[in-house]
Amino acid sequence: MGALAVVLGLLGYLFYNQQKLKNRQLQKENQLKDALIKIETQSKLQEQRLRISRDLHDNIGAQLTFIISSLDNLKYGFKIPEKLGNKIKGISEFTTTTIHELRDTIWAMNKDKITFEDLQIRISNFIDQANLAAQNIKFNFNVYESVDNEMAFTSVKGMNIYRIIQEAINNAVKYAEASAIHVDISKHEDRMIIRIKDDGKGFNEATINRGNGLNNMRKRSEDIKGQLTIHSEIDKGTVVEVII
Amino acid sequence: MGALAVVLGLLGYLFYNQQKLKNRQLQKENQLKDALIKIETQSKLQEQRLRISRDLHDNIGAQLTFIISSLDNLKYGFKIPEKLGNKIKGISEFTTTTIHELRDTIWAMNKDKITFEDLQIRISNFIDQANLAAQNIKFNFNVYESVDNEMAFTSVKGMNIYRIIQEAINNAVKYAEASAIHVDISKHEDRMIIRIKDDGKGFNEATINRGNGLNNMRKRSEDIKGQLTIHSEIDKGTVVEVII
Repeated sequence: MGALAVVLGLLGYLFYNQQKLKNRQLQKENQLKDALIKIETQSKLQEQRLRISRDLHDNIGAQLTFIISSLDNLKYGFKIPEKLGNKIKGISEFTTTTIHELRDTIWAMNKDKITFEDLQIRISNFIDQANLAAQNIKFNFNVYESVDNEMAFTSVKGMNIYRIIQEAINNAVKYAEASAIHVDISKHEDRMIIRIKDDGKGFNEATINRGNGLNNMRKRSEDIKGQLTIHSEIDKGTVVEVII
Repeated sequence: MGALAVVLGLLGYLFYNQQKLKNRQLQKENQLKDALIKIETQSKLQEQRLRISRDLHDNIGAQLTFIISSLDNLKYGFKIPEKLGNKIKGISEFTTTTIHELRDTIWAMNKDKITFEDLQIRISNFIDQANLAAQNIKFNFNVYESVDNEMAFTSVKGMNIYRIIQEAINNAVKYAEASAIHVDISKHEDRMIIRIKDDGKGFNEATINRGNGLNNMRKRSEDIKGQLTIHSEIDKGTVVEVII
């Protein structure tokens, strides 16, 4: 009789346990179903965003190209004095950089992450372009061996690093009257050190007014929790350093 | 003895079953964990994209604004003949529409979906702007009661509908010499019917060359699987109809 009670008790316990397991499994299955639906929804949204970013690229890109050709065509329709012509040319060139920035931004937006290799290729291309536009300046881009090519950034970080380097090079090309610009990337412990150095005329940071260029670099560096220092000496050049 | 065998058999079966359930549960738990990690990753990417789209808005937006003010300022620095001045003004206005389109696109990109109400407000605002620019034209925007305010589109669909309407209105304002433009939205069975009608001078579709305007509308309509028809009669005006 006692043995029967034990067996029955055990059976009861096993049945009860099995039911509990089944319930828990059902619950997990429902959670999984919800999660899969959410992943599906997010993927669809993601696909929508990609389509819209193509719209940005195709349409806004085409409109900017149209602005450039309209500006460039003014010189065929009208007799334009040289000074005005230079101004218009300047606006057209600025519009060209806007197209490039639009494309860079869309590029970053559609990347899950940006590897150091991606970044390096893009910086190289940018320097090649800058060199074409400023052939009298010697450019030098040097990545130290300590830097790991496979290292990856979030797309926001990658884009901001790229923009800071771009801005620093642009400033050096436009204002420094430099004969050489060096871009060095190295690594020290866990931090990446980016240095943009020119041998130009330098400036006094207290009195400089370079539009939003310097402020933009500072803001972007803060955004990605980097440390930016700018060291400039009159007639000796400028060093922009960002540590990430 | 027979009873014992049955009980033991039952116990064995229950144990075996329980183990199977446990294994399956573990498997589900792992799948759920993977799904949650995936959701987390997608959310982070989504947040990255939002930050980059702010960059688009702030930076590309600021650059376009700078292009406009540079163009507008030319007239203060130089003596510009009227015809050239008008050309430059035209380019500046085109740049302004580019800013608006950039902002519209970013708006759509950051929306999960676009309700009919969203769309209606945006169309209304656009018509108000067009009316300011073309005060001699009478605008009329009419949404029939059959249209459900709560209806929602994907962001791609919503944006493309908006762009088609914009393009049709722009064409009517620019080329039709119309005195009135009607925008009607109605619903028939499950389909939405959008009609943009002007009383202008009309055109012959075979001989018209309106840049990319008409082609853009067709392409956008195809993209969202809509049906676009354009009916124009010389001296009687044009009707653009899109059924979605």
